[in-house]
Amino acid sequence: MSGAEAAIARASELVGPALRDAVGRLAPELRGPVEHHLAGGGKGLRGALAVIGAAAAGGTETDGVPGAVAVELVHNYSLVHDDVIDGDEERRHRPSVWAVFGVPWAIVAGDALANLALSVLLEADSPTKLHAAQVLTEATGLMIGGQAQDMAFEGRRQVGVEECLRMAEGKTGALLGCAGAIGAVLAGAADDVVKALEHFGQRLGLAFQAVDDVLGIWGETARTGKPVGSDLLAHKKSLPVAIALARGGPELEALLADPIAPEDLGAATARIEATGAREEAMAIADRAYEEAMAALGSVPLQAGPREELAAIARFVTERDR
Amino acid sequence: MSGAEAAIARASELVGPALRDAVGRLAPELRGPVEHHLAGGGKGLRGALAVIGAAAAGGTETDGVPGAVAVELVHNYSLVHDDVIDGDEERRHRPSVWAVFGVPWAIVAGDALANLALSVLLEADSPTKLHAAQVLTEATGLMIGGQAQDMAFEGRRQVGVEECLRMAEGKTGALLGCAGAIGAVLAGAADDVVKALEHFGQRLGLAFQAVDDVLGIWGETARTGKPVGSDLLAHKKSLPVAIALARGGPELEALLADPIAPEDLGAATARIEATGAREEAMAIADRAYEEAMAALGSVPLQAGPREELAAIARFVTERDR
Repeated sequence: MSGAEAAIARASELVGPALRDAVGRLAPELRGPVEHHLAGGGKGLRGALAVIGAAAAGGTETDGVPGAVAVELVHNYSLVHDDVIDGDEERRHRPSVWAVFGVPWAIVAGDALANLALSVLLEADSPTKLHAAQVLTEATGLMIGGQAQDMAFEGRRQVGVEECLRMAEGKTGALLGCAGAIGAVLAGAADDVVKALEHFGQRLGLAFQAVDDVLGIWGETARTGKPVGSDLLAHKKSLPVAIALARGGPELEALLADPIAPEDLGAATARIEATGAREEAMAIADRAYEEAMAALGSVPLQAGPREELAAIARFVTERDR
Repeated sequence: MSGAEAAIARASELVGPALRDAVGRLAPELRGPVEHHLAGGGKGLRGALAVIGAAAAGGTETDGVPGAVAVELVHNYSLVHDDVIDGDEERRHRPSVWAVFGVPWAIVAGDALANLALSVLLEADSPTKLHAAQVLTEATGLMIGGQAQDMAFEGRRQVGVEECLRMAEGKTGALLGCAGAIGAVLAGAADDVVKALEHFGQRLGLAFQAVDDVLGIWGETARTGKPVGSDLLAHKKSLPVAIALARGGPELEALLADPIAPEDLGAATARIEATGAREEAMAIADRAYEEAMAALGSVPLQAGPREELAAIARFVTERDR
């Protein structure tokens, strides 16, 4: 286990019981779909950022727990709804909620998790919980906006690299930024510390998304948990696709706009790679990672937790492999 | 126009612009589905209770506006999602969001409205907005729990009258209770006043739901906006059905559990009526209405707004007809 994995595991031991307590307050009818989803695990990355962020800002990890539970609940509600939206029958190598319980139960279970996130946060024993709730709702709004942009992209032939990055900053970056900051907010940290941790999380989110997009095209199912090529088959305008479209000319645009037969997937993937889109996406990930690390160094933080945040950033952008 | 309608219309002139401002902050991709839904109108009942509740508690109607916008946003998000859940292709005599834009856009538009509700409230210029947000998330959680119970009931043969009432208290009563209370909270009202206005809204919600359930079986489409008999065809365990099941014996239970052919709808409706379920549901509505009125009289309130709240209660429980 790497240092990052150990830190995430330790955080999960703190956040997990509080998360289960919160879910235990839902109406009994909702527990089936919610517990099915949560039993799939998940890294607990966002919750770990929240509690370690609280410690980095000079508080205790416990200060960050309500924020950690809230960001984990928002993240999980978005996954439950996204699986319906994308028609994904699998999540974390198990059937998704809608695939087992049907679309109505996935909708209402996601709604319940979203609301529970705010309930937990507003009950926190912290004089700054109002600010924390504002940070969470702002990030959630950006996440939803990014999701809507992503959906709109699927129906378009062309998507610019810049707008693709803005979409990822919303869809993935905003909640990771919130995860970085919310524990520090609850611990009563100064504004510049909160902003630096938020920026750390946002840039880490972009780096993570760029790497994830590359794995979505060139990764193995065993690692990604998604069928190979599913992003291309769904006409997802992920970052490498946007880069390839900007470089590849009308012929590539037509290739990616038309329905792709599974047997043509290898050729389409090679055409995208030939534009240099894979390297460019990884270069964007590198720059975002460096910006995340620079944010960590821009304010005084507790050394131990800061090192853990750095280790987690290396881990989730696949720098430990 | 009755006094109630005039009061609701006046409140809508105050709440409507703030609601449109809030929606205008959503990502452009979301405006299509959201504005399609909101263009259908809706009474604005919850928003009216919030601003008139603020005035009844001794504040100004303007004090209640952020709460009014928030409860209207929560109500509308629940309608957008409920139409997907129930497969209802129409809402307010127009195609529902999912019927026009598809299920994914209905999910994400509802999510955006839900989050926007909290954002608006947490930005309110009121020292008690944290309490208001707690009242809203608690009510929203009860509403979602009630929705989940309602869904679970559809798959059951028997539902008791008591559990049916508990479901309606969650699904309909909780948000109306919140609407009654949230303006008073924002206006800084005393706890007993807040509690009385909350209880008023909760009991009004139950009365309203009981009347709505009766109209769902015996009402005309022109008034209800729903096809005649759709509740029975969907095996909804509405209040008259629960009462009839408790009184009608196994034969009626079998009749209502099996798929009902449209041509048998009239006979099924008559069988329910023969148990006295229609009268009993209206009697429950009467009692809940009286409890709502008693709550209004239990604390000192400003006379003008209190009269308006009473008029609205008569209006929405169909006592003006």
